[in-house]
Amino acid sequence: MAISKLTGAERADLIPSLPGWSEVEGGDAIRKSFRFDDFTRAFGFMAQVALLAEKADHHPEWSNVYNRVDIVLTTHDADGLSMRDIDLARQIEAL
Amino acid sequence: MAISKLTGAERADLIPSLPGWSEVEGGDAIRKSFRFDDFTRAFGFMAQVALLAEKADHHPEWSNVYNRVDIVLTTHDADGLSMRDIDLARQIEAL
Repeated sequence: MAISKLTGAERADLIPSLPGWSEVEGGDAIRKSFRFDDFTRAFGFMAQVALLAEKADHHPEWSNVYNRVDIVLTTHDADGLSMRDIDLARQIEAL
Repeated sequence: MAISKLTGAERADLIPSLPGWSEVEGGDAIRKSFRFDDFTRAFGFMAQVALLAEKADHHPEWSNVYNRVDIVLTTHDADGLSMRDIDLARQIEAL
């Protein structure tokens, strides 16, 4: 079953509820940059996100440079942003 | 103490000894892209690299999308590629 892409109205409603997350140009993804005290804390956070992602079977596109972690969420099966991205962002925020 | 940047001759000697690693344009870094069966294996590899990096106090610039891990190694203190990058790449290869 195809996953529904969020409508413009849904994006406008949901994204502002996620602190620090913003729409990527074109609206097909959301992103947030996280900063930590050091690499150990940054990677510790990544390990937590990895477990959430695997459990949700929905994986981030992300990068890390020392204490910074940049996360992009998008749903390839929906060819854009879906509720799965919003749900994973919420879970990340709850960490 | 400043870390020495590798000379062109040293780069030409050392980089070919690292299978799959290539010089980034400009020669200030080396990179390699790794592919795994799935996210769990990709992130398991990242966790191993993270421990090596923290132990060496030398950290990669890297990104992950599902089963792919792209690693870039450079030494900011040397403003380019140093022996620390070669050493970390060797340790990653030994995993």
